Amino acid sequence: MNIKLVSTLLATTLAMPALADRLSTEPVQPIEPAVITEPEKVELGKKLFFDPRLSRSGFISCNSCHNLSMGGSDNLPTSIGHNWQEGPINSPTVLNSNLNVAQFWDGRAATLQEQAAGPIANPMEMASNHVLALDVLRSIPQYRAEFASIYGDEDITLERVTDAIAVFEETLVTPNSRFDLWLKGDDSALTQQELAGYNTFKEIGCTACHNGPGLGGTSFQRMGIVQPYITDNPSEGRVAVTGNDADRFSFKVPTLRNVELTYPYFHDGAYWKLEEAVDLMAKLQLGRELALEDIDNMTAFLKTLTGEQPSFTIPLLPPSNNDTPQPVPFEK
Amino acid sequence: MNIKLVSTLLATTLAMPALADRLSTEPVQPIEPAVITEPEKVELGKKLFFDPRLSRSGFISCNSCHNLSMGGSDNLPTSIGHNWQEGPINSPTVLNSNLNVAQFWDGRAATLQEQAAGPIANPMEMASNHVLALDVLRSIPQYRAEFASIYGDEDITLERVTDAIAVFEETLVTPNSRFDLWLKGDDSALTQQELAGYNTFKEIGCTACHNGPGLGGTSFQRMGIVQPYITDNPSEGRVAVTGNDADRFSFKVPTLRNVELTYPYFHDGAYWKLEEAVDLMAKLQLGRELALEDIDNMTAFLKTLTGEQPSFTIPLLPPSNNDTPQPVPFEK
Repeated sequence: MNIKLVSTLLATTLAMPALADRLSTEPVQPIEPAVITEPEKVELGKKLFFDPRLSRSGFISCNSCHNLSMGGSDNLPTSIGHNWQEGPINSPTVLNSNLNVAQFWDGRAATLQEQAAGPIANPMEMASNHVLALDVLRSIPQYRAEFASIYGDEDITLERVTDAIAVFEETLVTPNSRFDLWLKGDDSALTQQELAGYNTFKEIGCTACHNGPGLGGTSFQRMGIVQPYITDNPSEGRVAVTGNDADRFSFKVPTLRNVELTYPYFHDGAYWKLEEAVDLMAKLQLGRELALEDIDNMTAFLKTLTGEQPSFTIPLLPPSNNDTPQPVPFEK
Repeated sequence: MNIKLVSTLLATTLAMPALADRLSTEPVQPIEPAVITEPEKVELGKKLFFDPRLSRSGFISCNSCHNLSMGGSDNLPTSIGHNWQEGPINSPTVLNSNLNVAQFWDGRAATLQEQAAGPIANPMEMASNHVLALDVLRSIPQYRAEFASIYGDEDITLERVTDAIAVFEETLVTPNSRFDLWLKGDDSALTQQELAGYNTFKEIGCTACHNGPGLGGTSFQRMGIVQPYITDNPSEGRVAVTGNDADRFSFKVPTLRNVELTYPYFHDGAYWKLEEAVDLMAKLQLGRELALEDIDNMTAFLKTLTGEQPSFTIPLLPPSNNDTPQPVPFEK
């Protein structure tokens, strides 16, 4: 490195003390853009994510409940499954879900790949099964050709299907939110109100759980630490995975990224207003009664976490043919 | 025009006699690409087409049953509506629907704009109503701003909503199918089998109804002219609009464009195999018993009618807020 370059770098660094400070000292880190190393697999995964033939009815795809036009969620308290069954729990956003320590509210899937297999065969959700769903895909020459091109042979296995879906989902990150621009040193990216909201967010202790690049997703916490959370939702959370009584009503801390888009809130989807969610979290988790001004400021801050949404062309699904098992939308 | 240009044009014309012949003499004309004159309105219409908040449940959008990843159809015999109700009739493709003489199987809507209002308020389909759906849109500042930019003021009316959807739908054409390339003079675009199928298609009289750029969509015909069509679907077709007994079991002739993608077939969606549909149409409408070879050839020809599918980025829907009426996915 020559002297001139070094001195330029030094001058740049000295001119931006905020940049180095924030990235090293703030409890939140920016979302990094996706680095796509397997574009063909991403395209296949996108098709599978949008393909309702993975459901028994032929009507429900991954995108039905993790709608990429709507923050990767369905914006319903709990989801609509096969035969309009009422789902047991709020569909978490798929956006930035690669940052989660585990998948599902109770963390029962260790990876995105493992998660992707669940809803396909869940009788409350897509209500297919892994034999039928694979038979559908295997009957379609264009799918066989894509799997062969990516995986070396035409075999369409659950492992490959969920791998492709997971690799697509890893691209669903939302960088360059206004908050991230501020984190990276752009002082003009946030208003005074938003900054005040962020400071309160830190001061009262929200960042104990909502930290890291996802502002959440990295730990399981009891819902209702100081006061119990009142709900008619029967979910008991993490205990279903660990069998440990101490994990009853413990859920994965949801990401706050794009929280403006992922209403309604909490595992039961009972709260539609971000202000109410902020107020309640402060009360139940931290024992704090917030002033209205603080709630408004924190809500304003939370809306700066909306990042650039994934942008891509809609997939064109290869058609079924005479060999494809037919969907069963209505049970006779 | 100078002499050189005239002689070049003459030479070109003389070298391609097939081109002029086919375009003027064949009963089918090519699909022309969309000419977009109002790009902002198209983008708004695309958002509305994909917005499930136009339904009571917040789950069903236009795209649910006219899925643009699947030939503009849902590939189900009849559609799944609000609360998983079984629809009365097969969802026609939205692709090239601007070429139809009227909309719906019975032609009860004169225009795409008129059609678009129907499913929103149909209790069997999206199950909202025109007051509620407009209240939802009016509550969202980004929608208000888009309507203001396009229509001159913030007023969100049913007329404007359906206008924007219709203008988006007018872009959903599928040019440059292999058959259209052949129509335009490219002899290599079709195989001998496909060409033989097309010739049979004309010779036995299919083009009496399946003609024009859409190969259909331009007339109403009795389903079962020579022999009755056996179905348990109670739809009586055009008579519901005209009150004329002669129109009983008369339906709009469906387009054959992209027919490979728009299974299952007929107004009741009872036939999944194109070969069966060809065989049955020849029998019931034309009194012809086709040889297997003819059926195969015609099926091969019909698959050349798959054109370039609309390609666009998925819309990002502006979020609801505290003023937005909430969806009602489950009736309590």
